[in-house]
Amino acid sequence: MSEDNRQWLLARRPSGLVTSDDFRWNVGAVPDIGDGEVLVRNLYLSCDPTQRSWMAGRTYMPAVAIGEVMRSFAAGVVQVSRHPDFREGQIVYGLFGWQDYCVARPDDLFKMQVVPPGVSIEAALGVFGLTGLTAYFGLLHVAALQPGETVVVSGAAGATGSVAGQIAKIKDCRVVGIAGGAEKCDYLTRIGFDAAIDYKSENVMTRLRETCPKGVNVFFDNVGGRLLDAVLLHLAMHARVVLCGSISGYNDAAPQGPRNYMQLLVRRSRMEGFVMTDYNEHSPEAIHVLSGWVRDGRIQHRSDVVTGLENAPSALARLFSGENRGKQLVCVAPPATGAGGADMRVDP
Amino acid sequence: MSEDNRQWLLARRPSGLVTSDDFRWNVGAVPDIGDGEVLVRNLYLSCDPTQRSWMAGRTYMPAVAIGEVMRSFAAGVVQVSRHPDFREGQIVYGLFGWQDYCVARPDDLFKMQVVPPGVSIEAALGVFGLTGLTAYFGLLHVAALQPGETVVVSGAAGATGSVAGQIAKIKDCRVVGIAGGAEKCDYLTRIGFDAAIDYKSENVMTRLRETCPKGVNVFFDNVGGRLLDAVLLHLAMHARVVLCGSISGYNDAAPQGPRNYMQLLVRRSRMEGFVMTDYNEHSPEAIHVLSGWVRDGRIQHRSDVVTGLENAPSALARLFSGENRGKQLVCVAPPATGAGGADMRVDP
Repeated sequence: MSEDNRQWLLARRPSGLVTSDDFRWNVGAVPDIGDGEVLVRNLYLSCDPTQRSWMAGRTYMPAVAIGEVMRSFAAGVVQVSRHPDFREGQIVYGLFGWQDYCVARPDDLFKMQVVPPGVSIEAALGVFGLTGLTAYFGLLHVAALQPGETVVVSGAAGATGSVAGQIAKIKDCRVVGIAGGAEKCDYLTRIGFDAAIDYKSENVMTRLRETCPKGVNVFFDNVGGRLLDAVLLHLAMHARVVLCGSISGYNDAAPQGPRNYMQLLVRRSRMEGFVMTDYNEHSPEAIHVLSGWVRDGRIQHRSDVVTGLENAPSALARLFSGENRGKQLVCVAPPATGAGGADMRVDP
Repeated sequence: MSEDNRQWLLARRPSGLVTSDDFRWNVGAVPDIGDGEVLVRNLYLSCDPTQRSWMAGRTYMPAVAIGEVMRSFAAGVVQVSRHPDFREGQIVYGLFGWQDYCVARPDDLFKMQVVPPGVSIEAALGVFGLTGLTAYFGLLHVAALQPGETVVVSGAAGATGSVAGQIAKIKDCRVVGIAGGAEKCDYLTRIGFDAAIDYKSENVMTRLRETCPKGVNVFFDNVGGRLLDAVLLHLAMHARVVLCGSISGYNDAAPQGPRNYMQLLVRRSRMEGFVMTDYNEHSPEAIHVLSGWVRDGRIQHRSDVVTGLENAPSALARLFSGENRGKQLVCVAPPATGAGGADMRVDP
């Protein structure tokens, strides 16, 4: 463990795929903290596609400034606390950034939370973090999913997509996942998807017709691009397209829009975007429900861990090449034994 | 008035702009009718952008078949009735097609309706027809417009757009119209729009910033294309984009999709399509409300009449060139004096 504070700073706005040249390595002193602050030593970083958009410009959050520490969800251990709600040794998660040490202000936006007993760090950053909560709120609040509907998920083998599909199965829906490659598609059917479409080797339009004979009631879209256009041609009446991400376009300077968007008129349907953090007040309830499903084995999740803060840029890039298998994490420092409680992960 | 039945039949699927070569002129006998049917002599044809999509393929209705009479809303006079609800001389409107005489079956879909007393034929096909009802249901039901919101309407000088903007003013909204050319923009401010943007001579992005300082809460879109993309960049939070049409793309074999659709996520907004006829059961109530507004002079409307069934193809083409000023109609035969009651039109 370092006694310096190593950091990745944003060096430039990305163009195309994220590379380590977009960042600058910096080594400084471990910072002091003031009243109301907490010094967190990072253990794991969460890699999320939305980080690419934070690098590029203003979105639903301000852009990461050039020269600023790269923004990231992370989990860590409280090293020093000058905040009444936190004490040394607690495992916490929040927006701690790509660095060894973070001065966290728990009263800020995205306030840090304590990883609850019985929850692994990996689960806290995955199924109980941005990832799983996005799936939960997107399907149950934004799409208002109904039992018996047909749900299609793109990026289905990803961390969010795989949880979304499993939630839809729990809600008695027919669930079809779209993913790239046979291994990912096999994984989807193993965790309970009714069907999987390999967009790399199969005709997506034909397979949608085969696997969704009554049309698509809900499309949970992580990908955009040609997959979105294909699904738009297979909507059922009064369908809901939930915009979770558009990973196919994040690295593209001039991404295409969905040419078939007027199918929304033909099918009296809607396309709606959302940001998970808008539902923060409902997060405790969602985490409670999700943890029951994880405990019962009804939601399975897996992580893909890269070791070393120095590898954070290449770990992030894995999301866009599709190399990751499940939730992509970066281990910055191994947690002390027992930190974060027993691992509730159920890897297939 | 002809004793033959002159017709325009669809000759081919259109490619690019609608031309008379897409149709075939046919002259046949005036048809006989059976029980439950009504023979209607057409007086006026309604020109609607959606007719281009009916020619091209299946949409929310089956395509017009090649060799079939071109589908069109129209108003006419009952010549012979073998249906208990209709009698000779009544002025009616429905999907009567591009022909002199139509055998109407009042019990079918889009059943024909009697033009109510005190309503001109032009108003029946315009503000109380597809045109006005589309504006009414799109804003009040689909967008669920709230007082004080900022509403942008594209194709604002068109028949539907101008009614949409005036409804939004009645609902105490700030209303900005987008139209092509100074004459149309002048018209918009004369009928009460707070501002008008001339997309042909002004920078739409700049003008949206100026005229919608709080962002756009509701976009009533008749146009699509680059105007939709511009407005997507100016959405307020929780905005609603109502897809009424995409006239900029109807004549394009491979129209672009909205590149900025992920702004729906950034702004937690939705884009929703609808078809007016889904609200048929609410039409009497809507017509009642609209007629009060027309009577009070709060909704003004204008028509643009081309004379002669033979000119129906070129009249339809005027919608796409932007030549029409208000509701485009084709006069097939002049109505008898007093038919359809007094004209409630309030032309500026």
